[in-house]
Amino acid sequence: MSRASAELPVTRWRAGQASVGTDDIATEEPLALHLHTPDAQMPLGVLMRTPGQDHELLLGWLVSEGLLPAEFSLAPDPDNPDLWHLHTPDHARLAAGARLAVSSSACGVCGSGSIEQLLARATAPVWEAGALSAGLLADLPERLRAAQPGFARTGGLHGAGLFTADGQLRVAFEDVGRHNATDKVVGWAQARGELPLRSEVLVVSSRAGFEIVQKAVVAGAAVVAAVGAATSLAIDTAAAFGVTLCGFTREGRLTVYTGAERVQP
Amino acid sequence: MSRASAELPVTRWRAGQASVGTDDIATEEPLALHLHTPDAQMPLGVLMRTPGQDHELLLGWLVSEGLLPAEFSLAPDPDNPDLWHLHTPDHARLAAGARLAVSSSACGVCGSGSIEQLLARATAPVWEAGALSAGLLADLPERLRAAQPGFARTGGLHGAGLFTADGQLRVAFEDVGRHNATDKVVGWAQARGELPLRSEVLVVSSRAGFEIVQKAVVAGAAVVAAVGAATSLAIDTAAAFGVTLCGFTREGRLTVYTGAERVQP
Repeated sequence: MSRASAELPVTRWRAGQASVGTDDIATEEPLALHLHTPDAQMPLGVLMRTPGQDHELLLGWLVSEGLLPAEFSLAPDPDNPDLWHLHTPDHARLAAGARLAVSSSACGVCGSGSIEQLLARATAPVWEAGALSAGLLADLPERLRAAQPGFARTGGLHGAGLFTADGQLRVAFEDVGRHNATDKVVGWAQARGELPLRSEVLVVSSRAGFEIVQKAVVAGAAVVAAVGAATSLAIDTAAAFGVTLCGFTREGRLTVYTGAERVQP
Repeated sequence: MSRASAELPVTRWRAGQASVGTDDIATEEPLALHLHTPDAQMPLGVLMRTPGQDHELLLGWLVSEGLLPAEFSLAPDPDNPDLWHLHTPDHARLAAGARLAVSSSACGVCGSGSIEQLLARATAPVWEAGALSAGLLADLPERLRAAQPGFARTGGLHGAGLFTADGQLRVAFEDVGRHNATDKVVGWAQARGELPLRSEVLVVSSRAGFEIVQKAVVAGAAVVAAVGAATSLAIDTAAAFGVTLCGFTREGRLTVYTGAERVQP
């Protein structure tokens, strides 16, 4: 069975009506590559990826990073589908040039390991603002876009913003990177002494991957609304931290992956 | 003047007709954060970002990474707008927990520095397939999408594919990450002994940032077509390596940022 996606339960809101169903969710899981030297093995990189073509991904990543050795063997771990092993006589050069894509996920990783690492340094966000109207939530991305002059000019900038529970925009930032735009929101709140957040909705113009939910959790944002889809690891993380995670939030509709009790007609 | 975007010359194709104009392009430039210890300064991170809210970005990044010290000063370099300095009594913890976002760009970076580093390990792709029809190019993302079963199911997966110069799909991959999908294409070609590419068009379902063009250059792909916008650094990199870079490639139209001579009616 392919691990590229999985059916998960969701609540869909449309025209003020909720319906329960399932959605096919793109899988996001860490893949670790270990480099073997005569004395040890060390993590060469960890990639958040969709499983299924790990050999091609690792080969291409080694090429792109300028790390591909002339001689090597590259093989999956017999027991862990998210771990591969690289043996090469050129290990010294690779060890020196290594870039750790996710240096904190250095062990034989999996998604639950990523969530455990986050649990070690963050607690569940507290939500003090009561239930949110589905219709209001569905409208927030449009209000964010109205505060994105750069997107209007270029079509190439992501946005992230904070809204009060009654839909007032507090701040919006843009960046070529959706993670950067979110970090700018978090930094703005930090500079004002407002972290952890307790009653603000984080809205992103992008999809919601693990890193977006991770940033929301660290900032204390208990409700996240994304214009695009959520990934499997984003959903698992939101569930672990009691975050209400919404995707496909557009055109009056939204899909609630976790924390659906906070969304009301 | 805001550095968030800049007007750059482009060639637009629509219904087989070319017109020359300008487009407002989102700026992508590296931002370096240096950590100061009593003995030295070291790069703590390098972020590819849109300039303009660097203080918020760096504060938020430190929060998100779990690196924000209780006491610190964070200030821009007086001479380099893309470099900030962090002084803190907590430097030992930060140095240990540091994640280098782009470890190879460790000096006081800027976009031209990123291009120089790529020049040091890659040469300009060779294109052996003659001129490409604008109408054919504009159709490739639709053909890629037809080869993306995961996107059709989930709406959450990016695609990257290789096409021959006459528009035949050679291979397509999907992933939650656009960089991963592109690496899978590169790895597939590497495994078949087909690198460097010489006559294939790389098509991505996403925007084209620096890293997409970097991967294309390393793989020898001389023509790149993106569904979304290109960033400033992607365009500068494509220009430096003679890559034909197309964006907004959809609905029969495309915008050619660089290498427009390879695109014909």
